[in-house]
Amino acid sequence: MLIPVLDPKLYFCRMLQVSLIGSGNLAHQLLVALRDLTGVDLVEVTARNTEAIDLLDNDIPLNSDFSKLRPADIYILAVSDAAISPVSEQLGDLPGMLAHTSGSVPMNALMHENRGVFYPLQTFTKGKVVDFSKIPICIEASSRTGMDTLNQLAQKLSEKVTELPSNQRRQLHLAAVMANNFTNHIFYWAERFCIENQLDFTLLHPLIEETVAKMKAVGPFDAQTGPARRGDLNTLQHQLEAMPTPELKQLYQYLSNSIQNTYGKEL
Amino acid sequence: MLIPVLDPKLYFCRMLQVSLIGSGNLAHQLLVALRDLTGVDLVEVTARNTEAIDLLDNDIPLNSDFSKLRPADIYILAVSDAAISPVSEQLGDLPGMLAHTSGSVPMNALMHENRGVFYPLQTFTKGKVVDFSKIPICIEASSRTGMDTLNQLAQKLSEKVTELPSNQRRQLHLAAVMANNFTNHIFYWAERFCIENQLDFTLLHPLIEETVAKMKAVGPFDAQTGPARRGDLNTLQHQLEAMPTPELKQLYQYLSNSIQNTYGKEL
Repeated sequence: MLIPVLDPKLYFCRMLQVSLIGSGNLAHQLLVALRDLTGVDLVEVTARNTEAIDLLDNDIPLNSDFSKLRPADIYILAVSDAAISPVSEQLGDLPGMLAHTSGSVPMNALMHENRGVFYPLQTFTKGKVVDFSKIPICIEASSRTGMDTLNQLAQKLSEKVTELPSNQRRQLHLAAVMANNFTNHIFYWAERFCIENQLDFTLLHPLIEETVAKMKAVGPFDAQTGPARRGDLNTLQHQLEAMPTPELKQLYQYLSNSIQNTYGKEL
Repeated sequence: MLIPVLDPKLYFCRMLQVSLIGSGNLAHQLLVALRDLTGVDLVEVTARNTEAIDLLDNDIPLNSDFSKLRPADIYILAVSDAAISPVSEQLGDLPGMLAHTSGSVPMNALMHENRGVFYPLQTFTKGKVVDFSKIPICIEASSRTGMDTLNQLAQKLSEKVTELPSNQRRQLHLAAVMANNFTNHIFYWAERFCIENQLDFTLLHPLIEETVAKMKAVGPFDAQTGPARRGDLNTLQHQLEAMPTPELKQLYQYLSNSIQNTYGKEL
């Protein structure tokens, strides 16, 4: 009988055991991303209402009792900001580390000694599966060992993993609010303005995509165009007068003044 | 001797003769796009300072005398808004139609009887060659024949050609100012905020791209997220306090109020 010789370059790696807590949009996105990830064993999904979870025909155990969790290396608490503290209090002692997923809640909102944060910086849409590999994941942990464990998981999911303390993560979250919520609301204004003038808003889609591409390529300072940057007071006055509502006039004046102030020294 | 029989499906098409006037960024982009376009013969490029034009080793004739233009079907006047009227006055009578490329100048700023507008709705960057096929081109003409000629050229360049009268084109241009200039300035604020907090602004790039993708997929009204949309007054207050400068506080308050007003009826 021949005994096969094992390749010395092969070795056995222990699977990282991950337990997921939550049934919302992010919990679902993480479930989809983690269930088939090499080196990760999704040991359990826990939620008060287990019916809210669609396991997608996987045989991952479901649990509804927060005080009885299976052993895991990392417990990912993917619940709303307001639920982080109350839910973590119900979890009791855990054999692994507990990490929440919020951009704005401090790590110390978790009372567990072995705690951390696992914050994917992205906007998630119900029903739209995301590719985590391009999403920055910001991590924080109460110990170096905890950081290593979180880092191991984050690296498997994303190409962009960053260690950030709570205060900087909160600032990054605020910048994200500006870059997402505020710009989307301006798109809404532009759309309403188009509708009121019987114009097809989708005509602006290529422009909006190029605005972002240009901003990424040269940075927003150099990407700025328009009459406010040029200091073209004549065009500014005409455009201001053409704004149809007091709200849009105010917006136009406010943002144009800010652009003029930013570039004023250049003129 | 055999005489080849011509395929009856083949016929000879007259090339559309196009003359380009201007030496700026858009003129250069159009030169690159038009010189190799099937069915288009770029007969001449005219500019006061012909040295400003890089013909890219093509043998397109260069001209610096506005009063002596070669015959063409369409003269594209790609100059700044302020130069449209003065330059067109110098052109004299033309055998073809004259079209300017501005989003905000009325067609009637051109005194020629056979006039039109050829407005590519996009932001152009020096040195970055664009793909015109995805750029909406808005056209207008003083006659049906003129419109057909402009349409023929626009269709060769772009998949999205729209007929728009001057007043609607001006409104679309204003919507474009909002969607481009205003959002880019908000990206600038977010970047400055990151720099002040020693954060890498590029961490926000994937979020910004997803914000646009989501807005395109479901429209900006449904794409809105954040505390202002949810009416989460507690988070709004915390975020407002965290804004580091009076300018950013004012911006935050202004845009959050507007989002709250937009979604207030839903809550």
